[in-house]
Amino acid sequence: MQAYNKVSEAMLEELRAAVGAENVITDLEKLDQYKTDEEYDPRRFRVPEAVVRPANPQEVAAVVKLCNKYMTPVTVRSGGTSLADGAIAVCGGIVLLMERMNKIIEMNTEGMYMVVEAGVRTVDIQKLANEAGYLYAGDPCSAESCLIGGNLATNAGGNKAVRYGVTRNQVYGLEMVTPTGEIVEVGARLKKCSTGYCMEQLVMGSEGTLGIITKATLKLQPLPPYRFDLLAVFDDPMKALDVVPRIMQAGLNPTSMEYMDNSYVRATADFIEFKGAPHYEDGIYVIITVETFTEDELDSKMEQLNDLCEEAGAVDVLEADDRIWAMRRNCQESISLVSKVSLTDDVVVPVDKIATTIKEIMHIGSKYPFPIPVKINAHIGDGNLHIVLCKCDMSDEEWESTVHAFHEEVYAYAYAQGGRLAGEHGIGAKKLNYMEEFTPAGELELMRKIKRAWDPNNILNPGKVFNA
Amino acid sequence: MQAYNKVSEAMLEELRAAVGAENVITDLEKLDQYKTDEEYDPRRFRVPEAVVRPANPQEVAAVVKLCNKYMTPVTVRSGGTSLADGAIAVCGGIVLLMERMNKIIEMNTEGMYMVVEAGVRTVDIQKLANEAGYLYAGDPCSAESCLIGGNLATNAGGNKAVRYGVTRNQVYGLEMVTPTGEIVEVGARLKKCSTGYCMEQLVMGSEGTLGIITKATLKLQPLPPYRFDLLAVFDDPMKALDVVPRIMQAGLNPTSMEYMDNSYVRATADFIEFKGAPHYEDGIYVIITVETFTEDELDSKMEQLNDLCEEAGAVDVLEADDRIWAMRRNCQESISLVSKVSLTDDVVVPVDKIATTIKEIMHIGSKYPFPIPVKINAHIGDGNLHIVLCKCDMSDEEWESTVHAFHEEVYAYAYAQGGRLAGEHGIGAKKLNYMEEFTPAGELELMRKIKRAWDPNNILNPGKVFNA
Repeated sequence: MQAYNKVSEAMLEELRAAVGAENVITDLEKLDQYKTDEEYDPRRFRVPEAVVRPANPQEVAAVVKLCNKYMTPVTVRSGGTSLADGAIAVCGGIVLLMERMNKIIEMNTEGMYMVVEAGVRTVDIQKLANEAGYLYAGDPCSAESCLIGGNLATNAGGNKAVRYGVTRNQVYGLEMVTPTGEIVEVGARLKKCSTGYCMEQLVMGSEGTLGIITKATLKLQPLPPYRFDLLAVFDDPMKALDVVPRIMQAGLNPTSMEYMDNSYVRATADFIEFKGAPHYEDGIYVIITVETFTEDELDSKMEQLNDLCEEAGAVDVLEADDRIWAMRRNCQESISLVSKVSLTDDVVVPVDKIATTIKEIMHIGSKYPFPIPVKINAHIGDGNLHIVLCKCDMSDEEWESTVHAFHEEVYAYAYAQGGRLAGEHGIGAKKLNYMEEFTPAGELELMRKIKRAWDPNNILNPGKVFNA
Repeated sequence: MQAYNKVSEAMLEELRAAVGAENVITDLEKLDQYKTDEEYDPRRFRVPEAVVRPANPQEVAAVVKLCNKYMTPVTVRSGGTSLADGAIAVCGGIVLLMERMNKIIEMNTEGMYMVVEAGVRTVDIQKLANEAGYLYAGDPCSAESCLIGGNLATNAGGNKAVRYGVTRNQVYGLEMVTPTGEIVEVGARLKKCSTGYCMEQLVMGSEGTLGIITKATLKLQPLPPYRFDLLAVFDDPMKALDVVPRIMQAGLNPTSMEYMDNSYVRATADFIEFKGAPHYEDGIYVIITVETFTEDELDSKMEQLNDLCEEAGAVDVLEADDRIWAMRRNCQESISLVSKVSLTDDVVVPVDKIATTIKEIMHIGSKYPFPIPVKINAHIGDGNLHIVLCKCDMSDEEWESTVHAFHEEVYAYAYAQGGRLAGEHGIGAKKLNYMEEFTPAGELELMRKIKRAWDPNNILNPGKVFNA
């Protein structure tokens, strides 16, 4: 572990000069708010030594230069919705807030793009696009509370990834502050480019370790005016999962395909108090959304979908109304009814391996003494599984050793299928050890070389993703 | 410029031990075949000191390690179809051929992917996919002769990029040999991933400077069974270009949109001896391809397209048969009828800037004493312009200074629009100076840091893209 310096009074003076005294927080009570993100475990909290609120990229750059000068690390906090300890300053130092950089700079419908600062809420981008008849296709489940900068830094996924891809597919270019404090633009508003290295894709998904994204040029799509949400209910997870390849092969191009096992169907129906949820007792849900530009196309696709679901053995095919989507949206929250502490995992595997992977995970889970069986919801159209473990009244020690042993088995299986640790939540500090364990040495070494070349002092978000 | 060593007898001995004596070519007559790619200017030719033909990644790695040991550069040659001197060993040393690594390793229709070695011809990948009812969507104009490795290294574009994106969008993962001779896999067969740095996108488009791609896992798409090719003829380039945003905004999702100015219409009709080419005298062509999964959708889209073209002021809207596509395919070759020496440029701009950019380029071109006016064909659906200049009987000096002055003006204009030097041909050695001139220093420095960190001896394809 590198030796960093604590935030000194001299550094604070310079920080205040750079961003204004009112934007350098050192009050302990206020700092306490920034000790965690969505992390529940107090042992993983860390109160930063100072919190800084820059107003623009120049101020961000000045702060980063000071961090290099004083050898004090800096961790960027976006919406604070990380499930991987991404916003926790695990090596101490300062936390940088992007909340003042919250302007939508340009909305251009003719060129179909939007230029936004990193601190804009994702939902505000979606809404502004929608109101003009366009779609910003990035749609993480936390869209209401997350900021676009965090989406970019973690390459957030979400519900529309089947059709439109993940956050990295929605971006033309970025403005960033490098780990040495230079303001640089990477990428361009082009559909095609073969002019030097593709650095915007490198920076996206690097979880704030390679640069602080300050601005982004986002792609807009024409908004399909027609939409249908279908709920296919199955009595067997394997049948439910068998429908995925059928739909992909048919070229139906659904916007989303979501999976909820029966334990989730019950928990979420209870949570939102939806009496009469279809097949509450034993149903497994697959929710499929199709969007089109003509009514005829919608009708034709719905008919095909219906047939494919029935062929796959669906016991019922219904329209998925708002209540079904409310169930899906409340998967995470519904857990709180049964366990105060729980853990959501984010393994991703090739789409054609998802059925066997779910089967194997249930099998692995059954070997461990979890008070409640492993629960799974999934973005099945893109192979991304959210595995939820409930602590209930297990002791801390029992919980941790059980979770660790379970993860070791699950991750080993996922990697053997060509999968990876995280589909959309990122690695953060939470999965760093697993990242070191499961990533081949050669691949990790290439990442390290980039990190060390760009960030020689390891100033930017240290203790995240891998050991730099 | 770095000091490299010539290929020594000791190095040759070790190369022969690594790949077999028959795969180390030193015969001058044979070496002469590898002095150029599609470069026409003998002053840019360079005969390599040795040509090496490895059979597998282990042999590639051994060769790269030897190059580091002896401080001798290595340049990879794929299909040799570079228009940017990409395959010329401009700093001497050895040329590495990928032609023995030409196996399609796996074709998996259930998982919709294909695993191929880097030396497979692109057209063979396309054909194999098509025969099984699938599409490999990478489709550079040189598909008949280029190899997939070169497509990956340059992030090749082509005719289907409007709908499917460029080569980098067709790839799940790569196997590569690093500049220090390690075999590493980057990327994974996943639709979503937030697990460490996205290095496959960094390596693609790096033109062989960051790694030698030996294998790729490519995405397959379901092949749409219905297709229509429409030719819209215009009498005014601005009207022709005005049709692009209309089509994009309507969500018609065409597979391709190609543009030929009237000089190209005439030249290509003459070249393929197509008497009676529509509107030969004064027509400007926009060729639009739409592909769908149902006949109804095709009918509906064709109707909409027809209306949009007429609204944009098309003088004629016809079906584009094979002869029209043959004209488009022969743009490059048709030039040889009028000038033995010509230069094809590859500027790319945002799609909504293409009309004004073409206008400006014609204006700039008119200021220079080219024997034949500047000719333009374009992938207009993605803002990529091929500007062709003809030397005819200009002197070498006059040609070069005129071309240079023209380029300076055109590139400055393109960058001011948010454009870049190359949409699909890459930078190679040919545009390196322009790359250095037009790329902001901060962006270039980030590229340099990666190159230096990965390739400390600057062994891999030196003298390309930028000055490392």
